[in-house]
Amino acid sequence: MNPLIPTIASLADPAFTQAVQIKIDQKTKPLGALGQLETLAATLAQVLGDLAPVLAQPQLVVFAADHGLAARGVSAYPQDVSWQMVENFLSGGAAVSVLARQHGIQLTVVDCGVKHDFLAGLPQGQQRPGLLVRKVAGCEAGTADASIAPAMDAEQCAQAIRNGRELLSALPGNVLLLGEMGIGNTSAAALLLARLGGHDIGLCTGAGTGLDAAAVARKTAVLRGVLERHAQAQTPLEALAALGGMEIATMVGAILEAARTRRVVLVDGFIASSAVLVACALQPAVRERCVFAHCSGERGHALMLQDLQAEPLLNLGLRLGEGSGAALAWPLLVSAAAVLRDMASFASAGVSEADAAAP
Amino acid sequence: MNPLIPTIASLADPAFTQAVQIKIDQKTKPLGALGQLETLAATLAQVLGDLAPVLAQPQLVVFAADHGLAARGVSAYPQDVSWQMVENFLSGGAAVSVLARQHGIQLTVVDCGVKHDFLAGLPQGQQRPGLLVRKVAGCEAGTADASIAPAMDAEQCAQAIRNGRELLSALPGNVLLLGEMGIGNTSAAALLLARLGGHDIGLCTGAGTGLDAAAVARKTAVLRGVLERHAQAQTPLEALAALGGMEIATMVGAILEAARTRRVVLVDGFIASSAVLVACALQPAVRERCVFAHCSGERGHALMLQDLQAEPLLNLGLRLGEGSGAALAWPLLVSAAAVLRDMASFASAGVSEADAAAP
Repeated sequence: MNPLIPTIASLADPAFTQAVQIKIDQKTKPLGALGQLETLAATLAQVLGDLAPVLAQPQLVVFAADHGLAARGVSAYPQDVSWQMVENFLSGGAAVSVLARQHGIQLTVVDCGVKHDFLAGLPQGQQRPGLLVRKVAGCEAGTADASIAPAMDAEQCAQAIRNGRELLSALPGNVLLLGEMGIGNTSAAALLLARLGGHDIGLCTGAGTGLDAAAVARKTAVLRGVLERHAQAQTPLEALAALGGMEIATMVGAILEAARTRRVVLVDGFIASSAVLVACALQPAVRERCVFAHCSGERGHALMLQDLQAEPLLNLGLRLGEGSGAALAWPLLVSAAAVLRDMASFASAGVSEADAAAP
Repeated sequence: MNPLIPTIASLADPAFTQAVQIKIDQKTKPLGALGQLETLAATLAQVLGDLAPVLAQPQLVVFAADHGLAARGVSAYPQDVSWQMVENFLSGGAAVSVLARQHGIQLTVVDCGVKHDFLAGLPQGQQRPGLLVRKVAGCEAGTADASIAPAMDAEQCAQAIRNGRELLSALPGNVLLLGEMGIGNTSAAALLLARLGGHDIGLCTGAGTGLDAAAVARKTAVLRGVLERHAQAQTPLEALAALGGMEIATMVGAILEAARTRRVVLVDGFIASSAVLVACALQPAVRERCVFAHCSGERGHALMLQDLQAEPLLNLGLRLGEGSGAALAWPLLVSAAAVLRDMASFASAGVSEADAAAP
């Protein structure tokens, strides 16, 4: 057993599942009338092991890194946008900043390998509020260009996973909301989907931040070449190292640790889901802890969700990343938990049940 | 001009629409990357006439009434559930109570004609907190059985509309969330959809609170007979009176008044949408003020939304009514307004824009 990867036990417990279902079915509503919210309530109860689940101190973590692949023209935006957006997160002006504030969710940005020194000019050892610098040694400028070399070597990838586990274990709360930033990282996610799901890269590659059709075709060709170059990287860890990114590898570590400590993982869009894909390939029971916030407008995400057998909560054509979809879906989790905790039962409210004989 | 129905002016203003779009497009995100949330933000800005919209004092109003049609076996639940659920709303145990509490939304229940005296035993003139009794004279026991007589006569229907306008005008805030309760009222909504949309009743009739296939077939046959009996009721007001319900007519009045006073109307499911269908048939510019919370699991709602050219926010298989879907969608409106108000622009945050030439 590799000590890098914790063993995640299944939460399956038929007696508990039945107890949750009975509690839901006794609520004052027709059977199943709250649809997917009921499934969600059951998931939250199971993950937290509580028939009256309370979601506490939600943590939205934005994992950020740069990608050497960006030099191959796979994004509509210049690479500097990665660090500029990190500054925007920290100063509260980004979409995810606004949404986290709305919901009282703590926002932490992790520099997993952004090509920028966020601590430049600060006295040695001084930190910035809301920012964790967790660059991997040798990767200060970000993920290597996977079209000419592995994105990371095995040790760098392991270090990123360890970083993710450690930083998550220091955060409070029982819900992790996943976010990310990194110009070029839809390419890494598409590569992981193609390799781990066994799909043609053409089905996995989309417009990202806004490529036109011709640029998507060029991006697809670049990514096809990357897959050929790293044809030997077949296991989840090999694929993550060769094709992934520093922020994705760090996120994999955080997901594994969140699962180990029995937290709910609220998954954002395409890139966050690619980290979940890797984590579930490593430890399938991770999947039981995951709630999928939305189906992104990014091509490939619907296919990825299908591979993960995930039914997302929202379908609003979002394609921003940052954790914005997770933050938007968050109040639905609060609602599901509140319904399970606080709704009256037919008996407690004195409401008649459905006629035994259909009319 | 019938003074019962206010004239609702169109809010269309190309210069304002363009100003909103420019503001959205300057936010630090790829063009269109917040998908439907951007459309929602533009709607809120337009309805409130404010490029920095602030949603204030949201009011969730649950319109409740009984239906004589319930005696024809169109529901899985006994009619007493209408008043029992009103008590459940008032004591805070219903789904909508829990959700309104979560979001700090004021909840008001209106007895538009429930077969029950909620003030029995109270001293003359004493009211109950959270309850408005607005029964129509002659309809204290609810809507008449439309299979043997019009659901309401013209004057009763007018009185219900007036009640809705008056009660809404006394409520504060700039957002109305629609809710309803009434055993049998999916039948009234299906009848209105069939008549106003020109659809076969078979496409409009669903399982409601949980009928099986045979019972849905019987319900459909009953409703087909109702439509034949009231073949002459073709205008929106005639159809509302002959086929509708006290709670639907009162809701129509509230929607019209909300539109007149330029409030956002957040529409719940099948029955609330049927009131919007009537209101829009009376005054098409009502539609501009409406946001559709969700697509219900009730058969007929997708068709109704299509007739209304509505793109709902959620699609969670909800089929509870009460305003529960509206309450679940509410935080998305808050998010859309916050994004429009508080997100940084590329210029203010110092973030680079997309490369002019696609890579």
